[in-house]
Amino acid sequence: MYYHKDLSLLTELIERFESLPSIGHRSAERLAYHLLSVPKEEAQAFADSIVKASREIHRCPRCFNLTQQEICCVCADKSRDPKIICVVEAPKDVAAMERVRQYNGLYHVLGGCISPVKGVSPDQLHIPELARRVAEEDVEEVILALNNSVEGEVTTSFINKLLLPYAARVTRLASGLPVGALLERSDEMTILRALERREEL
Amino acid sequence: MYYHKDLSLLTELIERFESLPSIGHRSAERLAYHLLSVPKEEAQAFADSIVKASREIHRCPRCFNLTQQEICCVCADKSRDPKIICVVEAPKDVAAMERVRQYNGLYHVLGGCISPVKGVSPDQLHIPELARRVAEEDVEEVILALNNSVEGEVTTSFINKLLLPYAARVTRLASGLPVGALLERSDEMTILRALERREEL
Repeated sequence: MYYHKDLSLLTELIERFESLPSIGHRSAERLAYHLLSVPKEEAQAFADSIVKASREIHRCPRCFNLTQQEICCVCADKSRDPKIICVVEAPKDVAAMERVRQYNGLYHVLGGCISPVKGVSPDQLHIPELARRVAEEDVEEVILALNNSVEGEVTTSFINKLLLPYAARVTRLASGLPVGALLERSDEMTILRALERREEL
Repeated sequence: MYYHKDLSLLTELIERFESLPSIGHRSAERLAYHLLSVPKEEAQAFADSIVKASREIHRCPRCFNLTQQEICCVCADKSRDPKIICVVEAPKDVAAMERVRQYNGLYHVLGGCISPVKGVSPDQLHIPELARRVAEEDVEEVILALNNSVEGEVTTSFINKLLLPYAARVTRLASGLPVGALLERSDEMTILRALERREEL
């Protein structure tokens, strides 16, 4: 369809960019042309950065957060409270929580959410490892900080049931109107949720 | 500011993505996390694609379009009319023109536009090579197909003056309302231009 007859390498590069999340064909073209317009050393440095990050960054064996060290910097930080575990879907959610600068416990990264539709079952996630941590470590609270989606809900209630036998308190992030939200622009589900969980003044 | 304490390689990868055009910090983060979530072979293949494209794609010595061959596929195509040269800013503009499937002449890629503000002078572009082509080859028409911007205008009139001594006709793409445009949503400059250049029915 497009004109890259003798440019199979450009076509391939465009397709690679297009395979990335939320990059459409036009953006992919623009990015590929950009990389061909910069000095070869810069393109090489970009490629090296991808390879090095991909090779050297791995999962923390305890919480499955990303790390370049043996264990991640949260697990390694002795000043953090090991009795609280915040459960998130992905490493980027750890970054989102840390940005708040208020949470001082540890994490547990599931690697996704339970989804019958996508065929993701609990044992394909790091849910068994979470149960083991709660059983073996001295955990007082498990905060479920999953996305506020149907799959997040399913996963939240699955883990809640799974952890019932243990002494740890299981909580979840509050659901309601986001800070700064205009009522007239909020969707029905959010308003309904905020109404059901209304708080005493 | 963000939380990537022991993840210098992730931070670097995010910065690399951020240096690409129209990729903001959040998009860069998402792309970097994505590349860490795919199999290492896939990340490696992406990096290889960048390096190979950057190494093997170069400028056509005649028209400065991108090519993997000795000369580009337009210049190499004997069925195209060598008496017409379409002048564009960048290789992606060649792709845009080719998508129309109506133009059958050759190209000349300037590598940018004249811009006193950005300090780009005519001899930093492939303008001398264009003058040489017009002087030495049997050129009947030069179509200036530059962006419809201030810099495009400046470059268009510079090249027009430069080519005055030669027999070749110098034309430019028409300026006016784009196809499908709503008058009420068109900007003043576009309407003014369309009014000034109104056509007899």
